[in-house]
Amino acid sequence: MNRQPTLEDVKNAHRRIKPFIHRTPVLTCCSLDEMVGAKLFFKGENFQKVGAFKFRGACNAILSLSQSAAAQGVITHSSGNHAAALALAARMRGVTARIVMPSNAPLVKVAAVKNYGGIISFCEPTQASRESTAAEIIEQTGATFVHPYNDRTIIAGQGSSALELMEDVPDLDFILTPVGGGGLLSGTAIVAKALNKQIKVVAGEPRNADDAFRSLQAGKILPSLNPNTIADGLKTSLGDLTFPIIQQLVDDIVLVEEQEIISAMQTVFERMKIIIEPSSAVPVAVLLFQKLKVTNKKVGIILSGGNVEFNPFFERMLNQDGHGAA
Amino acid sequence: MNRQPTLEDVKNAHRRIKPFIHRTPVLTCCSLDEMVGAKLFFKGENFQKVGAFKFRGACNAILSLSQSAAAQGVITHSSGNHAAALALAARMRGVTARIVMPSNAPLVKVAAVKNYGGIISFCEPTQASRESTAAEIIEQTGATFVHPYNDRTIIAGQGSSALELMEDVPDLDFILTPVGGGGLLSGTAIVAKALNKQIKVVAGEPRNADDAFRSLQAGKILPSLNPNTIADGLKTSLGDLTFPIIQQLVDDIVLVEEQEIISAMQTVFERMKIIIEPSSAVPVAVLLFQKLKVTNKKVGIILSGGNVEFNPFFERMLNQDGHGAA
Repeated sequence: MNRQPTLEDVKNAHRRIKPFIHRTPVLTCCSLDEMVGAKLFFKGENFQKVGAFKFRGACNAILSLSQSAAAQGVITHSSGNHAAALALAARMRGVTARIVMPSNAPLVKVAAVKNYGGIISFCEPTQASRESTAAEIIEQTGATFVHPYNDRTIIAGQGSSALELMEDVPDLDFILTPVGGGGLLSGTAIVAKALNKQIKVVAGEPRNADDAFRSLQAGKILPSLNPNTIADGLKTSLGDLTFPIIQQLVDDIVLVEEQEIISAMQTVFERMKIIIEPSSAVPVAVLLFQKLKVTNKKVGIILSGGNVEFNPFFERMLNQDGHGAA
Repeated sequence: MNRQPTLEDVKNAHRRIKPFIHRTPVLTCCSLDEMVGAKLFFKGENFQKVGAFKFRGACNAILSLSQSAAAQGVITHSSGNHAAALALAARMRGVTARIVMPSNAPLVKVAAVKNYGGIISFCEPTQASRESTAAEIIEQTGATFVHPYNDRTIIAGQGSSALELMEDVPDLDFILTPVGGGGLLSGTAIVAKALNKQIKVVAGEPRNADDAFRSLQAGKILPSLNPNTIADGLKTSLGDLTFPIIQQLVDDIVLVEEQEIISAMQTVFERMKIIIEPSSAVPVAVLLFQKLKVTNKKVGIILSGGNVEFNPFFERMLNQDGHGAA
């Protein structure tokens, strides 16, 4: 069961999920090209359903369930995009999705999961409580646990984004993703290296959550302990399935600072007029801050998602100049 | 010279500017369709050069200059997108662009004009000072004045966006734009009604800057006096060229409140993952707040621009949780 996924697995996943996902656009931007000195191709997973690539893997996991497993539902613990993605994918097949969330999860994320029909169980905000709560529910319901990244069907699903990108732009010299738990990165690396041995696969990682960087150097998994980064999707650490794939296939992991992530996000907002979340800005920061030599190369970047908390921004707007006082 | 522009003028403008503008995408969004109960087609002028449809008109004005006029340069007074658009279009043809801006113009707008090579003359922030400063420069330089909307070449250029939209989606029942000075609205109406007599042309206007609404009711131009709206691109009042076109061809002008504009903008950010400026959110607010009966209809909306001041948003992010303290 834990054999590594292959290009074939990704292709099968893509065939399976194709009717349910958006084929996301590949965007270009002259001013970012100029700033970086390369030709950039942005794969817009911020436009994917639930606003993130996570829907690809979740969809593949749900569609890969046997009839009997589907009848017993699925469960995961996550407070992020994976929870919303699993809830929506499950609803599409009429499968019950149970989500264990910490009691301090942001209301907006709780609302998203509820909106997609997910059944939420709150737990204490510790890893131990997450796991024991999930184990209890699995015992009661027989639900299948769907890990957010350390899972073969999830990795295969996430790889489908790179498959589409390389179909649209076959002659990339580089392909970049962010790295958190490594689902997107390992899926991307499997596809990229199988289609083109010459391509360089590079991940951006926040220095404040640099477990993948340190793990590759040490040759063993060194998890991040309570990482503090604006890129909240990248706080997770590599798993025993994603780590060896990354070890074998990824050419480089490049660290970026918090200010660089925020600055890259602002540049994308202002120049490309699209919304990306901080995690997506991490590989963009690698390029904008010249941490990777890509001059005159063709570079693919997977923009992983676009879920940003805008309430403070719009509340401020509402309170300015008496606009809210009508 | 002041005859009304026709579909032919717009087609000629489009041919002229085509090599220089972006053909902007037409976007759709299932969740907004559901909210409104109609099929919506968003023409993304936020992705246009300089981030607004204004580049179309400016480009047409610049390319329509005779050789001798081009040699003497152009001038306008504006603190908004038209100034940046004219500066960039002028630079592309090697024409000198002079921009009169009020001394209190936002730094970010001053920087944009400078960035595109425009020569700025600051004036007192009054209409009289703007006009006298411009008149002085015209006398000194012989520059051609390019009005932001009350100009035939500008109107024809702005109409090219609707031309593209109706080429991509030929069977629209409605087409919506915001209305400020009326350049975009009149250009759109000329195209839409010439291509399809049945189509309804509707403008959204902020109640706080409702000169077009009142002018249509009164049958004469009634300018807004110091309007205060978040939709800063719509503070201008109709001109003697745009007013009669709008009188003849526009079916309805619908007013929206400030909170509705802000809420519509947030919905587009969160659901469509694209950045639009408040002016663009005005026709979206018309639809989201059910101020126009469009059930089951095909509705085109021109998203006029995407220039938003994000500095406070990102500064806040930088200062949160010590992310900026590295």
